[in-house]
Amino acid sequence: MTRTPHEAYDELIRLSRETALLESCFSLLGWDHKTYMPPKGSAHRAEQIALLAGMIHQRVTDPKVGELLTIVEASDLAREAAAPAAVNVREIRRTYDRETKVPEALVTELARTCTQAEDVWVEARKQSDFARFRPWLEKVVGLKRQEAQALSDGGPLYDALLDAYEPGETSANLARVFAALREDLVPLVQAIQGSGRQPDLSILQREYPIPAQEAFGRAAAAAIGFDFEAGRLDVTTHPFCSGIGPGDTRLTTRYNVHDFVDAFFGVLHETGHGLYDQGLDPAQFGTPMGSAVSLGIHESQSRLWENLVGRSRAFWEHFYPQARQSFPGPLGHVSLDAFLFAVNDVRPSFIRTEADEVTYNLHVLLRFELEQALIEGDLKVGDVPGAWNETLKRHLGLTPPDDRRGCLQDIHWSGGAFGYFPTYTLGNLYAAQLFAQARRDLGDLEAMFRRGEFQPLLGWLQAKIHRLGQRHRAADLVRVVTGEPLHHRYLLGHLRGKFGPLFGI
Amino acid sequence: MTRTPHEAYDELIRLSRETALLESCFSLLGWDHKTYMPPKGSAHRAEQIALLAGMIHQRVTDPKVGELLTIVEASDLAREAAAPAAVNVREIRRTYDRETKVPEALVTELARTCTQAEDVWVEARKQSDFARFRPWLEKVVGLKRQEAQALSDGGPLYDALLDAYEPGETSANLARVFAALREDLVPLVQAIQGSGRQPDLSILQREYPIPAQEAFGRAAAAAIGFDFEAGRLDVTTHPFCSGIGPGDTRLTTRYNVHDFVDAFFGVLHETGHGLYDQGLDPAQFGTPMGSAVSLGIHESQSRLWENLVGRSRAFWEHFYPQARQSFPGPLGHVSLDAFLFAVNDVRPSFIRTEADEVTYNLHVLLRFELEQALIEGDLKVGDVPGAWNETLKRHLGLTPPDDRRGCLQDIHWSGGAFGYFPTYTLGNLYAAQLFAQARRDLGDLEAMFRRGEFQPLLGWLQAKIHRLGQRHRAADLVRVVTGEPLHHRYLLGHLRGKFGPLFGI
Repeated sequence: MTRTPHEAYDELIRLSRETALLESCFSLLGWDHKTYMPPKGSAHRAEQIALLAGMIHQRVTDPKVGELLTIVEASDLAREAAAPAAVNVREIRRTYDRETKVPEALVTELARTCTQAEDVWVEARKQSDFARFRPWLEKVVGLKRQEAQALSDGGPLYDALLDAYEPGETSANLARVFAALREDLVPLVQAIQGSGRQPDLSILQREYPIPAQEAFGRAAAAAIGFDFEAGRLDVTTHPFCSGIGPGDTRLTTRYNVHDFVDAFFGVLHETGHGLYDQGLDPAQFGTPMGSAVSLGIHESQSRLWENLVGRSRAFWEHFYPQARQSFPGPLGHVSLDAFLFAVNDVRPSFIRTEADEVTYNLHVLLRFELEQALIEGDLKVGDVPGAWNETLKRHLGLTPPDDRRGCLQDIHWSGGAFGYFPTYTLGNLYAAQLFAQARRDLGDLEAMFRRGEFQPLLGWLQAKIHRLGQRHRAADLVRVVTGEPLHHRYLLGHLRGKFGPLFGI
Repeated sequence: MTRTPHEAYDELIRLSRETALLESCFSLLGWDHKTYMPPKGSAHRAEQIALLAGMIHQRVTDPKVGELLTIVEASDLAREAAAPAAVNVREIRRTYDRETKVPEALVTELARTCTQAEDVWVEARKQSDFARFRPWLEKVVGLKRQEAQALSDGGPLYDALLDAYEPGETSANLARVFAALREDLVPLVQAIQGSGRQPDLSILQREYPIPAQEAFGRAAAAAIGFDFEAGRLDVTTHPFCSGIGPGDTRLTTRYNVHDFVDAFFGVLHETGHGLYDQGLDPAQFGTPMGSAVSLGIHESQSRLWENLVGRSRAFWEHFYPQARQSFPGPLGHVSLDAFLFAVNDVRPSFIRTEADEVTYNLHVLLRFELEQALIEGDLKVGDVPGAWNETLKRHLGLTPPDDRRGCLQDIHWSGGAFGYFPTYTLGNLYAAQLFAQARRDLGDLEAMFRRGEFQPLLGWLQAKIHRLGQRHRAADLVRVVTGEPLHHRYLLGHLRGKFGPLFGI
């Protein structure tokens, strides 16, 4: 049956939406799995998930999609680069090509191997036993190299994997920006360590009753703009945000009665992701024009609300009186200054997920270096522990006491997620550069925060980023919004501006 | 591609399981919709549900299924009537024929009309405005008659609809059993009313703190055998049980601080459904051999635990001390006799869902009479209110003050569920007949209940019913287990045995 380009485009969009609906069922299965599913339901859940994953893969790689794309691409419909139709066609094409380039057998083999490797990793980490994990990591790296070869257009193998998380980004560009960042971060960390100042962290480890933590976190999320009529906040072991679909965005966190920071900034972080999901255009659901740009841009939204807003003095000038009311015991006699210093502690540590705003990026840079070398074949899996420890020493002056607190700490590699790590630091860099532009556009943001006004900033993010869907790739989006390419000076400026006064350096 | 009968059978089972997996995703969407979905997620949820419903219908009616059935049916595989393969083929054939007989256009038209009719019904009930609902009920009845004509094998139209809920049952058989039941029930109700005795209901309307209600209900559900590692209990407006799949059975209830009965017996009722779902053979999931027999048999399990066990003296001889500890305020000074009498109150009322064990069935019989007449064309929709009131007068001696408390009270007809109502009374009848057999097989059940031993009864139900899946249709199952066809004397015997002494008649 021959179709006009318009008919082909409409059919392409219909298929794209249907697949997205199926993916959103998949998301709900995942959310339920981690929140409310009874323990004995896991075998059945695995079968449900496998079935939907297969159906989704089949739809994404359906040759019909390729035929429709060819019809539309030959027409005028996809000509005007930033027009919605052109954007949708560009990105559907990208996904189709990626998904069809990798042989079915390799996809299956990767899925099976990574599931097993994750299980082995869990045990190996527990016992800090890299030797046990090594053969599995070798298998995973081998398969990911095959995948990269299948995907590669001739550039570095690593870039083909990076592209899954950060479409259009290159390792060369990242290496340049990250090297400059490192150049400035290392002395900053050293200066902070040399300052002789340290906050009193014990005030954050007092007893913070969990119901009050939950109420306070929920109130803060609502105050910065999260719509709880269109979302939820639940408890899971590992916090996450799941955008099920329009009107349904779900956050999770975890509570520890002796840790104020973990749950609260966790909620702000996930709320940042959630605000992005809630800000997508619901009319464009299921198409690239209604989807998030990349992991890096997604992370920029979470980091912006968590760190640039949530750890600022202005934010706490507004919220601290409420915090004291919510936690009269632990905070009743703590000054705003002491509290602020404590939530902005900086010190080198072994575990990335517990790291502060400054040292966090050095953890990421280490992983970026090592995973590039692994995928390009310049580092043997057997040499990972040594390389890890040597690099951490170089970046942070520390040597992990064991691999559990070293190269075995993250789940990513066991699951085959090579190319994921850099999006964390990209998120921090994007956040700072976007925030600086928001300040230029909106004026005194801090004065607004002090008054509890977050809508101007959220509205700006919605207009400049959320509502645009995938109109621009990440690097272009930053250029369009801020007028210049990604540069680390904004993050550095933010860090120096905040930590300089705090540590008197 | 030609297949051997074995290959065809294996493929049939594979398809059946896959469809069941998809249905179980559908169930989770429904459960989540009623429990945790944020309000603004409903439009998106409707699209997810429509997509899966369409995919499931497509799979169930796939001509490939018909071809595979034909191959298997021509072989020896399906010969031995009660063998698993024969049962699976028989029931897959039944579903395939039913689903393919109704034209796609009628299915769509029915789905659309019923969705709208339900909305109109909600409003019409609120305002007790039958005139408003009438044209919609006329449309629904018209379409259901068309559906019945498409499905009918020449018997009464109503039977073709009844068959959806109670495979193999006939209105002639039901009419016979129900008439005999009515014959005995009406004088029993009159005798109870004439006894001059009434329990003190106010003791059940005292303050029962909701957390204590929840803990007590959960403990009782666990005590009778519900596995909370393989299930949950949540709160919804209308209680239900959703068997998501092996290891995952979810109950809901609702709490009212001034109503002990509603939540507690609601939990027992749904637990009865849940025990059936948890008792199905997980290895047979997704095939008729791993599925429940019918709505009537499902209801027999819920009624058995709710009424025959849960409202018995023996049950409360075990649980009442715990109840008094859980609710020292309202029950501290209430004797077991007074409590038992209150939870076994009998009095004619307007609303089916609030009716007691005795009058409940008369409400069902009324609906059975009327809906048969509607589908057979012997009753005009416009005459429903009059017929309703006249029949209620005849059964229970009452006339509803308005249609809200009369023919507008139930959702079923607006949603096209004609043939559903009789399964409620079938459930009561099956429950009593099965329970009598269990007593014959196991001995003094009441002595066991008094000691808090429910495993013998549950084990019996699992062995005789749950584990058999759809090996027998409902009527046959009852015959196989109890040695005789369905008869109302067991229900009557139970009711007389309990209410005779209570009301001194």
